[in-house]
Amino acid sequence: MRQNKQVILKQRPQGAATKSDFSVCAGDVPSLDSGQFLVRNLYLSLDAGFRKWMNQGADDNYLTAMPLDAPVQSIVLGQVIETRHPSYPIGTLVLGRKAWEGYSTFSDADFVQKLESDPSFPLHEYLAALGPTGLTAYFGLLDIGQPRPGDIVLVSAAGGAVGSVVGQIARIKGCRTIGITSSPEKCSWLKESLGYDAVLNHRAPEGLEAQIRRELPEGFDIYFDNVGGRMLDLALQNMKERARVVLCGAISEYDKTGSHTGIHHMWEFVTKRASAAGFMFSDYVERYPEAIRQMAEWIRQGKLRSVVEFYEGIEETPRAFCDMMSGKSRGKCIVKI
Amino acid sequence: MRQNKQVILKQRPQGAATKSDFSVCAGDVPSLDSGQFLVRNLYLSLDAGFRKWMNQGADDNYLTAMPLDAPVQSIVLGQVIETRHPSYPIGTLVLGRKAWEGYSTFSDADFVQKLESDPSFPLHEYLAALGPTGLTAYFGLLDIGQPRPGDIVLVSAAGGAVGSVVGQIARIKGCRTIGITSSPEKCSWLKESLGYDAVLNHRAPEGLEAQIRRELPEGFDIYFDNVGGRMLDLALQNMKERARVVLCGAISEYDKTGSHTGIHHMWEFVTKRASAAGFMFSDYVERYPEAIRQMAEWIRQGKLRSVVEFYEGIEETPRAFCDMMSGKSRGKCIVKI
Repeated sequence: MRQNKQVILKQRPQGAATKSDFSVCAGDVPSLDSGQFLVRNLYLSLDAGFRKWMNQGADDNYLTAMPLDAPVQSIVLGQVIETRHPSYPIGTLVLGRKAWEGYSTFSDADFVQKLESDPSFPLHEYLAALGPTGLTAYFGLLDIGQPRPGDIVLVSAAGGAVGSVVGQIARIKGCRTIGITSSPEKCSWLKESLGYDAVLNHRAPEGLEAQIRRELPEGFDIYFDNVGGRMLDLALQNMKERARVVLCGAISEYDKTGSHTGIHHMWEFVTKRASAAGFMFSDYVERYPEAIRQMAEWIRQGKLRSVVEFYEGIEETPRAFCDMMSGKSRGKCIVKI
Repeated sequence: MRQNKQVILKQRPQGAATKSDFSVCAGDVPSLDSGQFLVRNLYLSLDAGFRKWMNQGADDNYLTAMPLDAPVQSIVLGQVIETRHPSYPIGTLVLGRKAWEGYSTFSDADFVQKLESDPSFPLHEYLAALGPTGLTAYFGLLDIGQPRPGDIVLVSAAGGAVGSVVGQIARIKGCRTIGITSSPEKCSWLKESLGYDAVLNHRAPEGLEAQIRRELPEGFDIYFDNVGGRMLDLALQNMKERARVVLCGAISEYDKTGSHTGIHHMWEFVTKRASAAGFMFSDYVERYPEAIRQMAEWIRQGKLRSVVEFYEGIEETPRAFCDMMSGKSRGKCIVKI
């Protein structure tokens, strides 16, 4: 029988996740019940947001806390290799929410969709610019942010999976783009490779506040927030009138089990007539084709560069995840199996 | 010469404003320069938001901190009695931002507008349901809140100037309306006189959280926030999917000179795909006629009741203001001169 390697949540991370919070085990691939199909996973997506559901009691209306001693939940991309579901014949490519594992069993009860991929793009792109990450950047910036030419767009975690796409779409839309990242190397890379007009290093001794005042003396029109917490609170003090805050992620908060960092600058929404909204890419399922078509066109035209950091083999997944959470990696992190 | 009675900001209130923070003095009515006109004030509007600008360093992009030993800033309604401005002949009724005083001098540099009043309404109504208060409720609820029939609308400071109107418009729009107020008497009044479906007393021993869970087990579609602070933070934990938070006022925060209360539940905007937006009624100046026409029609049809608490004489202004800030008064507070 095939061996199914899985990454198990051995213990709940206390603060920043470490490799020792996970273990890799190998078990049998289960046999299928009627209505199920078996997927051999080709790529695993690493997503910062899932860190939150590793915490005790992290249940919300979206997901429940991940159980201990069970495979870590994740988005996967794979191919059907056995089937007892008439709509998913062998060979079907799928994208679904399952776990860090070699083989996943799906049924209609799962969040899973067929992948109609364009063979001129590498398959992994459907986890990156043409997948959840790219769609998050696309709908978040365009629908929630409503950018207009000349707008000043500030992006936190600008070198991350979503941020690296947001900045480029904003530039395509004629905005002035300013990123926030965590090292001088990433500052240079974001300016030179991804076309950010300016990039601030929030770990620089000067401090982020002083850099924002210098680079955005009039504030921003759009803040695309991937970080939450103190960085969000600081951003709110720098809104232009009618600014839009796109609430996408809060990576600074996911390590916490208790209360999130207090945001003290809500009043600025009133005096600046500003707005904030949360969203999830999956709200826009009927508009995926439009978005994927547009993103693919931008990639072909050389206007959009997809940045992917690969890790090889399931065993590398914990390291990949910890690298991503600590800001070591660039762009979208994907484990290739 | 005429005597101009003025209420002076004698000292900056420390915490809740008290009558001793103000003094009443009488001076001469200044003579007019070219381009100015003199208004005899008939009514003074009391607005909680102005408390904020009594604090040291309360400057923002909207107003600067009120100077000490100068008349307290306010919205006034009055009539031109002397003029050196060709567009404001004697007898013109105006609404403007000036001060707690008997006579105000205006020029084009001021926020002032002519009042085209319908004589079938009492004039003071143009400071209440047909004025800034009513317009704030109207544009905030309808434009920012976007109510649909059947929506659950939660209103804080539900018996206040704005809240008392918001709940009624929400009811007209077919929403289930739930108010938050500060005494059992106001709970009864809001239900019986203003048609709220339920009213919660945030000072009741049971606590607001338990009352919200009981009365809104599924949460709200719209929260019209006049209070800010902890009440806002609690509300954010009770949003339905795609909830809208109308950020109108933050009366719980105006007494503070330091940092505002931290809001810990921003993440819920993401998981609930919710949104929040601030606004000011004055953003909608080109739509005033539409709003006033509609509000007037609702009043005539008996669907909307304007609640006004009168105080007589400038000397009563400090008491009126302190009553309003502590929740003693009902509806819109107006000083009649």
